[in-house]
Amino acid sequence: MLKWGENMKLAIDAMSGDLGSRIVVDACLKFVEKHPNVKLLVTGKQEELTLLNNYSNVEIIDARDVVAMTDSVLGVRRKKESSLVKALMLSSDNRADGVVSCGSTGAYYTAAMLFGHRLENVEKSCLMAQLPTVNGKGTCLLDVGANASNTASQLESFAIMGSVYASAINHIEHPTVALLNIGTEDHKGDEVHTEAYRLLSANKNIHFIGNIEGRDLLMGEVDVIVTDGFSGNIALKSMEGTAIILMKLMKESLMSDFKGKIGALLAKKNLYSLKDRFDYKSVGGALMMGFDKAIVKAHGGSDAVAFLSAMELTYTMVKENVVEKMKEGMKNENS
Amino acid sequence: MLKWGENMKLAIDAMSGDLGSRIVVDACLKFVEKHPNVKLLVTGKQEELTLLNNYSNVEIIDARDVVAMTDSVLGVRRKKESSLVKALMLSSDNRADGVVSCGSTGAYYTAAMLFGHRLENVEKSCLMAQLPTVNGKGTCLLDVGANASNTASQLESFAIMGSVYASAINHIEHPTVALLNIGTEDHKGDEVHTEAYRLLSANKNIHFIGNIEGRDLLMGEVDVIVTDGFSGNIALKSMEGTAIILMKLMKESLMSDFKGKIGALLAKKNLYSLKDRFDYKSVGGALMMGFDKAIVKAHGGSDAVAFLSAMELTYTMVKENVVEKMKEGMKNENS
Repeated sequence: MLKWGENMKLAIDAMSGDLGSRIVVDACLKFVEKHPNVKLLVTGKQEELTLLNNYSNVEIIDARDVVAMTDSVLGVRRKKESSLVKALMLSSDNRADGVVSCGSTGAYYTAAMLFGHRLENVEKSCLMAQLPTVNGKGTCLLDVGANASNTASQLESFAIMGSVYASAINHIEHPTVALLNIGTEDHKGDEVHTEAYRLLSANKNIHFIGNIEGRDLLMGEVDVIVTDGFSGNIALKSMEGTAIILMKLMKESLMSDFKGKIGALLAKKNLYSLKDRFDYKSVGGALMMGFDKAIVKAHGGSDAVAFLSAMELTYTMVKENVVEKMKEGMKNENS
Repeated sequence: MLKWGENMKLAIDAMSGDLGSRIVVDACLKFVEKHPNVKLLVTGKQEELTLLNNYSNVEIIDARDVVAMTDSVLGVRRKKESSLVKALMLSSDNRADGVVSCGSTGAYYTAAMLFGHRLENVEKSCLMAQLPTVNGKGTCLLDVGANASNTASQLESFAIMGSVYASAINHIEHPTVALLNIGTEDHKGDEVHTEAYRLLSANKNIHFIGNIEGRDLLMGEVDVIVTDGFSGNIALKSMEGTAIILMKLMKESLMSDFKGKIGALLAKKNLYSLKDRFDYKSVGGALMMGFDKAIVKAHGGSDAVAFLSAMELTYTMVKENVVEKMKEGMKNENS
């Protein structure tokens, strides 16, 4: 938690995205202008970050190595000189309150597990995705793949962390929580899910409304959706795959003849607005939940705007003491 | 298996779909014209089936009760006078070689479990969906939700049944098989999935090509995708939900202004072709796998064309001895 009078510090990995350091530098320049009281600790090849040299609230930390998207996830152990690991180390050494990177989700999460600190009372950390929904409200889905399996009580702790996040960041007073399952009835699913249903129903600190099916994930009727990492990963990727394929087929179908092309030209604005409204990229990858710092992942293909919005999210998470509130939430849980 | 000179018999539930008996009667009229040697045993309210009275190869079996889409799944136990249960009983009494219904998947599958017979050596029956894919080849996905959890050896038996089906019905010589998982590496997933990977790799009767992620389910790069019922159900419904929502949003977006409307009008043919190509309804619900008869479910909202294509599929399954081949496949497995 930030103490009174103390300035916020954010660690920024400048190197790990598909578009390199340029978009991160652009985003940092915009960020420092808006938030002169926040200190940025930017890790990366210093010769690529010279545009940031003249800002008193930016410190450049030279990092010669880069974690590539193609690197093996566990390889991150040996990449201590990389911009990604150095940025994470700044937070684990308490020199930064939050971290932003657009590195590979697997490597980033593994680095957080290896070099970060888990919150007290959190048995398992996890990955949270923010889904775009039909009604524009959005939904938090967790775990989307950090764990290959989870116990019922771990699912309960995901519900608490998700609720704290939805309340602090999305300003929802009593966020609703649902359990991803293969049917809506309370007896549905395997032992873990029936037991999780029981725990979630009994927990007075969360607003549990029952099971939700895969079909309704994007309806936006619930604020937080809890799932084990296996099913959550499959749900997220199945939705992503379907959206990507449908958009691609729509384009192909429209371009296949003259009338279609003219129609597409006329409806261009409408079709692009759909793409924007439903673009997984705009939501910005995943959040690492259950650590003692705000750890945010921007999408690997982020441009400066997307990276800036990930920085703003991290800023808000620190400002709103989300991590501290989760710690409190978990304490109530275990008391 | 049909003996030489013996006529095929199919049990047809005429009542359980959203559009009632009319579409089933239409489909039966077309079917008997094309297949004069097949006997249809049609269950339902006889007063609604009078158009079928004059066909020598149609027998009407009066059934006064109907399983409604809203009925509880287990309620089917008490619905012995329903068209759905009566059609299934015809196959379990060996009076029919296959069954077609567009009743609720849950009730239909439960009825098959209660009143049908599982194939020898099949520990768990399951539900199989045929997914439309980008390349038009299609993919078989099983289990899509009959079981809340599965063992590794059950996943292996699904691979065998799926391979037999893809080979006999889709005419693929050595169908490729993949395991739905949270990553492509062999160590990915929980214990069940790492063990299933091992079993599938070691099995010489199937052509296992490794893990597949949710993102690639609709790419059509693999013929059979094996999954536990929990993840499979979530994957299928997540894809369905995304497709339905995207189509709806596209329509809304196009209709939101004048230019969009004109564009949509011009591109109407293209947009409809996309809808047809990717319509889950056209694929026709799910198949019940692991029973000693061909049990096919047409989509609940089937029209006569969709119901007829489910009848044709059942006919082909019986003609190609799919069930017998699965029995053989499972025998090799256990020997």
